[in-house]
Amino acid sequence: MSESPPEERISEADLREAWPALSCEERVEGLRLLPRNAAEDLFFTLTSREQAELMLDLPAEEQRSWIRALAPDDAADLIQEMPILEERERFLVMLDDVTRKEVQALLAYKEDHAGGLMNPRFARLRPDMTVDEAVTYLRRQTHQSVEMPYYAYVLDPQQRLLGVVSFRELMAASGTKRVSEVMKPDVMAVDEQTDQEAVARLVRKTGLMAVPVVDRDRRMKGIVTVDDIVDVVSEEATEDIQKLGGSESLGEPYLTIEMRRMIRKRAGWLSALFLGEMLTATAMGVFEKEIDKAVVLALFVPLIISSGGNSGSQATSLVIRAMALGELRLRDWFRVVRRELMAGLALGSILGAIGLTRIVLWEAFFKTYGQHFVLVGLTVASSLIGVVTFGTLAGSLLPFVLRRLGFDPASASAPFVATLVDVTGLIIYFTTASLILRGTLL
Amino acid sequence: MSESPPEERISEADLREAWPALSCEERVEGLRLLPRNAAEDLFFTLTSREQAELMLDLPAEEQRSWIRALAPDDAADLIQEMPILEERERFLVMLDDVTRKEVQALLAYKEDHAGGLMNPRFARLRPDMTVDEAVTYLRRQTHQSVEMPYYAYVLDPQQRLLGVVSFRELMAASGTKRVSEVMKPDVMAVDEQTDQEAVARLVRKTGLMAVPVVDRDRRMKGIVTVDDIVDVVSEEATEDIQKLGGSESLGEPYLTIEMRRMIRKRAGWLSALFLGEMLTATAMGVFEKEIDKAVVLALFVPLIISSGGNSGSQATSLVIRAMALGELRLRDWFRVVRRELMAGLALGSILGAIGLTRIVLWEAFFKTYGQHFVLVGLTVASSLIGVVTFGTLAGSLLPFVLRRLGFDPASASAPFVATLVDVTGLIIYFTTASLILRGTLL
Repeated sequence: MSESPPEERISEADLREAWPALSCEERVEGLRLLPRNAAEDLFFTLTSREQAELMLDLPAEEQRSWIRALAPDDAADLIQEMPILEERERFLVMLDDVTRKEVQALLAYKEDHAGGLMNPRFARLRPDMTVDEAVTYLRRQTHQSVEMPYYAYVLDPQQRLLGVVSFRELMAASGTKRVSEVMKPDVMAVDEQTDQEAVARLVRKTGLMAVPVVDRDRRMKGIVTVDDIVDVVSEEATEDIQKLGGSESLGEPYLTIEMRRMIRKRAGWLSALFLGEMLTATAMGVFEKEIDKAVVLALFVPLIISSGGNSGSQATSLVIRAMALGELRLRDWFRVVRRELMAGLALGSILGAIGLTRIVLWEAFFKTYGQHFVLVGLTVASSLIGVVTFGTLAGSLLPFVLRRLGFDPASASAPFVATLVDVTGLIIYFTTASLILRGTLL
Repeated sequence: MSESPPEERISEADLREAWPALSCEERVEGLRLLPRNAAEDLFFTLTSREQAELMLDLPAEEQRSWIRALAPDDAADLIQEMPILEERERFLVMLDDVTRKEVQALLAYKEDHAGGLMNPRFARLRPDMTVDEAVTYLRRQTHQSVEMPYYAYVLDPQQRLLGVVSFRELMAASGTKRVSEVMKPDVMAVDEQTDQEAVARLVRKTGLMAVPVVDRDRRMKGIVTVDDIVDVVSEEATEDIQKLGGSESLGEPYLTIEMRRMIRKRAGWLSALFLGEMLTATAMGVFEKEIDKAVVLALFVPLIISSGGNSGSQATSLVIRAMALGELRLRDWFRVVRRELMAGLALGSILGAIGLTRIVLWEAFFKTYGQHFVLVGLTVASSLIGVVTFGTLAGSLLPFVLRRLGFDPASASAPFVATLVDVTGLIIYFTTASLILRGTLL
C-alpha cells in the first residue's frame, strides 16, 4: 500500500516521455533525479532551444558542467538560442579555451550554411603515416575530441585536404602500407558558405556519412555529418509545408509557440491574400449587369473558381517539391509548361464533362436551370477547361517566377495560387458566358 | 582545332550531371567509358528504380557483376523495382548463396517497415572477447561484409542483442578489458515491423547513427543506418507535400513520370473535390432569391469563401506537419481546438476590419454599394469572422478525424479543406446577410 513517491523511481524514458508537459522547475528537478549519465543522454536529445531554456533555469554553478558536456557545434547552437547578448558572453566564458575558440568561429557562420552546420573536430591523418600508425594514433585520440570517426581525413601541413580513408578501408588494409596509398585522393567537399539544402542534396545523392567543409584554399574546416542532415531535411520540409499552406514558417513547435507570435506569422500572408482576393469583388462588380440578367450564372461562380484553385494547388505543390529535391531547375521551365498545358487540358476536360453531366441531370430531375440549360452547361464546361488549364499553368510557373526573382519558390502557396487564379477565373467564366449566351440569357 | 571526341574524356561528375537527360543507350555507353571504380561509385548513387532500369538495358553477361556489387539491402530494393516476376527470379539467381538468402529474407518484409529498410550485415562481437581481440577481429572482416562499422553489437550465442559499443569507445578503451565491460547494455532497438516513420523519429530524437532491428525474441536481424533515414525523411515529406497540394503522391520524379500516370494521380482527387464543390451550386441555388433581390451580395461571394479556404489551408498544413513530426497526437485534439478557436477569431477579426474599411472607402470614392453600404459592410465583416473561424477549426480538426478513421492525415489537403469550407461559408454568409439586411435590402 505504501509506495515510494514516483519521483524517486523515474527513468530516462519516463522523463523523456513526460518532458513536453513539464514546467521548467519540474524539468530541472527531473534531471537531478536521474543518474548523471542518463541525464546527459536525455539532455543531448533536446533541441538547442530546449537546451537553452533549461540552462537559463539552472543555478549558475550547474550551468558550466552541462555546457561543457556538449560538442562544439551543439554548444554553438545552444548559445545561438540565447536571446540576450550578455547571456551568450556568460556561457562562452564557461567553456574551455580550445572549445571557446571553436565555438566563436562557428558562431561567425550563418546557421543555414555548411560552416554553421559543421563540427570542427574530425579525425586527421598525415599522408606518410603507415596504416598501423594511423590505427594506433586514432585509437589514442580521446573520447570527446572526435564526434564521428567514420572517415579519417588526410591533410598536408597547411591543413589542406589531400584525401579520405574510411575506417573500414583503414582496418582492412595491410598495416605496413602508407596512408597515402590507401586513401581516396579526390574528395567531394563543400565550401563554408554552401547552403544547407545543397549539402543535404549532396549527402542524399552520394550516400556519404560525412562531407568535409573546406575554405577557399581547400583548407579543411570541419565535417557535416549525416545525422545533422536528417534534421536539415526535416526542417526544410517543415518550412516548405508551412509556407505551402499559406503562412510564414513558424520556426518552433505548433503546441509551444506563443499565441501572439503564431497569429502574427499567419495574419501577414492571410491579409495580403485577402487584399489580392478583393479584386474578385471588383471583377464581380464589372459583371454585375450580367449577373443581374442571369442570376443562374452566379450559382456556378464558387464551383468554377475553386476548380481553378484546386488544380493550381496541385501543380504548385508538385513543382515546389521537385525543385526542393533538385529534380527541377530554372532552365526546365519550358518542359514544365508543356507538361502542365497537357495535364491542364486533360484535367479541365474531365471536370467539364462532369459539370455538363450534372447540369443536364439536374435539369431533367429538378428543372433548375431554365430553358437554356444546355447553353449554361456548355458555358460552365468550356470555362472549366479554361480555368483549370490556367490554374495548372499559373500554379506550376509561379514557383519559377519567384525563384527567378530571388524569392523562396515555396512562397507560391496553395492559397497564393488560388487567389491568383480566382480573379482570372471570373474573367474567363463571364467572358465565355457572354460569348455563348449572347442573345439568349444575356 | 582537332579535339578528341568528348565521350573519351568523360568524368564521373560529368556523367552524373548529364544523367537525367540521357537515353538508356547513352547511360550504358557512359558507364562503359568510366573506369570500373568510378562507374560503381556512380551506380551506387542512383535510386533503386534507376538502377533497375539500367540493369534491364545491360546485356545479360554484364548484369551479374553489377548486382553483385550491391549491399544486400540495396540489391533487395533493386529487385523490388523489377516489374516482372520472372525478372526478379533471374536476378536473384545471379547473387552468391549467402547474399541471395539475405535478399530473399529482406524481400519478405514490407518496404516501409524497419525490416525492409535494414541491412542484415553488421559488426558482431562476443561479450567475452577482450578489446584488443575485438579490434583485431573487426580489422580482419572483409570489405563488403559490413556496410557501416560505427557501432559493433554484442550478441549471445542465440544472436540475442546484449549490448552495443561504438568504435570510438572500443578504440579508446584499454585493450585488456572485456567487451562486456565497455559495452552499453540497454540498447534502444526497433521491431522488424516498426513503421519507417517511427524509426526516423527515433533516429532524429536520439541522434544515433544506426538503430538495431530485432525480432520478438530480441534476436538481432540487422541495422537501419542514418543515411537510409535521410531518404525516408525526404520521401515522407514529398508524399505529404504532394497530398497536401491535393493529389495522390506521384511516387516518381515529376519530370520522368509518364503523362498518363500523372494525370490519373491528379484527376482522382480533383474530380472528388469537384463533386463536393458542386454543393456550392446547390447552396447558391437555395439563396437565389436573395441574390436576385440584392446582387451586391454576390459580389463578395468569392472573397468570403476564399478567405475561409485560405485560413483552413494554413491550419491544416500546420497540424499535418506537427503530426508528422510527432509533436501532436490524437489526444491533443482539444488543445488544438482551443488554440485554433482563438487564432480563428483573431484572424477573422483582422480580415473583417480590412473588409469593412474597404467597403466604406469604395463607397466614399466610387458610390459602389448603394445607400445601405454600412449594413453590407457589417454583413461582410461578421461573415468573415464566422467563416475564418470555421475554416481554421475545420482545417485543424480534419487531420485528426482522418487519422482517427485510419486514413493518412495528410489527405486533409488544402483543396479538401477549402471545398469543405466553401459550402459552409456560403451558408454562414447568406444567413448573416438575411439577419442584418432584413427589411432593408432583403
